[in-house]
Amino acid sequence: MKNKFYQYIQNLQDRICKGLEETDGSTKFREDIWERPEGGGGRTRVIENGAVFEKGGVNISAVHGKLPDSMQKLFNVGEADFFACGLSLVLHPKSPMVPTVHANWRYFEMYDDKGNVIQQWFGGGQDLTPYYLFEEDATHFHQTCKTACDKHNSEFYPKYKKQCDTYFWNAHRNEARGIGGLFFDYCKATDDSSDSEQAKQISMENWFNFVTEVGNSFLEAYVPIVEKRKNLLYSDANRTWQEIRRGRYVEFNLVHDKGTLFGLKTNGRIESILMSLPPHVQWVYDHHPEKGSEEEKLIKVLEKPIDWV
Amino acid sequence: MKNKFYQYIQNLQDRICKGLEETDGSTKFREDIWERPEGGGGRTRVIENGAVFEKGGVNISAVHGKLPDSMQKLFNVGEADFFACGLSLVLHPKSPMVPTVHANWRYFEMYDDKGNVIQQWFGGGQDLTPYYLFEEDATHFHQTCKTACDKHNSEFYPKYKKQCDTYFWNAHRNEARGIGGLFFDYCKATDDSSDSEQAKQISMENWFNFVTEVGNSFLEAYVPIVEKRKNLLYSDANRTWQEIRRGRYVEFNLVHDKGTLFGLKTNGRIESILMSLPPHVQWVYDHHPEKGSEEEKLIKVLEKPIDWV
Repeated sequence: MKNKFYQYIQNLQDRICKGLEETDGSTKFREDIWERPEGGGGRTRVIENGAVFEKGGVNISAVHGKLPDSMQKLFNVGEADFFACGLSLVLHPKSPMVPTVHANWRYFEMYDDKGNVIQQWFGGGQDLTPYYLFEEDATHFHQTCKTACDKHNSEFYPKYKKQCDTYFWNAHRNEARGIGGLFFDYCKATDDSSDSEQAKQISMENWFNFVTEVGNSFLEAYVPIVEKRKNLLYSDANRTWQEIRRGRYVEFNLVHDKGTLFGLKTNGRIESILMSLPPHVQWVYDHHPEKGSEEEKLIKVLEKPIDWV
Repeated sequence: MKNKFYQYIQNLQDRICKGLEETDGSTKFREDIWERPEGGGGRTRVIENGAVFEKGGVNISAVHGKLPDSMQKLFNVGEADFFACGLSLVLHPKSPMVPTVHANWRYFEMYDDKGNVIQQWFGGGQDLTPYYLFEEDATHFHQTCKTACDKHNSEFYPKYKKQCDTYFWNAHRNEARGIGGLFFDYCKATDDSSDSEQAKQISMENWFNFVTEVGNSFLEAYVPIVEKRKNLLYSDANRTWQEIRRGRYVEFNLVHDKGTLFGLKTNGRIESILMSLPPHVQWVYDHHPEKGSEEEKLIKVLEKPIDWV
């Protein structure tokens, strides 16, 4: 399973980068191959100063070795070996009319001292962070997520949509980071899970098919939105609003995001982890959008996540 | 003691704001009075878009009530009432030639169920974050800190200078946030402390005199540096460097700073806490200064804090 999934994300990284380069039209991803001293490494691909994408990364990594102390604590286990691989992407478009997007698909294995797999699971999701709300874009993104989910289990979309709203909650601001999408974790096979009746009927093979279905839906979920909005005109005021909202993105990633904090505290490759941070950001003291403005409309939706499909 | 110290920081806030407004010359602090639902409140003063200061705050607060769960855990105590007051300031100048400065002076009390004070201590410090290193400025700042310390105890400056370098360490970047200054905490009287011989000879009154000595030294430590550098010419490239370095400031404050995280997790006034974040910030993937440049010279000093006096 680990080889199969790693093959998949290598291929997916190629497909996603190609698709995004076509949409951008002016620049290409640069690639950095890196090694992790304790085992494994990654292939980071970053785009900067494109016509459409101001900054972004589509990164894969596959790491292995002794489970770090912090992970032992998190998973409530003792010393063990592990393997983890995944694809993480964040794209910050230049235009405030084009939403930021984040996605991640990952697989994790833990071994006993004889090298037998004792635990294995998938996790991931994809979510959208607009600066101006086009309701049809939100609906398109969520409908694409739902279509991918429904091919596997009709309970997945509502469950993982809700988990996404819960996870990407900027608690200190009392608002969501964006308009959500999907978030799932600890997706385990029958004998490892007693979460629900649903989970009991699912093998790791089934989970692989589901997770890759979501991965395959990414370009379809995001690119049509980019194409529709990338040539819209915008003002300096729109851009200022985008940069202020990007500040909230930074706050979420550095204060609340478990993946980011985990990476920072376990000696991950800093530049690959923090490629998620936006290029130009502003903090303005006690900023509030005007009543009845488009900016306020966005805030209202972030304060109380709604159902898009 | 609590009334005396709160009087002091109210007066100090006035003096510092006045001094900084004179240095800026073009704009004034705006004031927001706020109340904490659970008890107490604060007086936030923020400056934005001045000739010298692009953004900054000089805030005081005095809060009291039941010790929040997170603080009970931190101090390893059960339920108790508390009082805390302090002054916090951060100033982000517009010119990359003028350093950012941070300072904080605070007092804390805890009570038993009869209202008797069972614990009390002072904490605080001041530290400088330049974007371009003028060694004489670093020396001036540290010398002013040392002079204030030496009036009270010759061991204070070396001890609190070292604690400052340790505290403001951006661990995930393996570099200091800035060039340091002073950092002290849990400054308690004889019968509450067995830390060292030194502490045993110090009363709360002595600590009050020390902490206010440092507070009184702030304008002298910082303003002459601002005056010397505020009219220097700088390029767009200098400004870009400043904005990139401000990103590291954000990273420290949101990932490592105990005060910020504590505020965010205990329902503090968000806008007063996050006034510390810089106005315009950049994140550039895998940025490294040129060999032999002024930018690289700064990095080398941040990687290995040095003695300035």
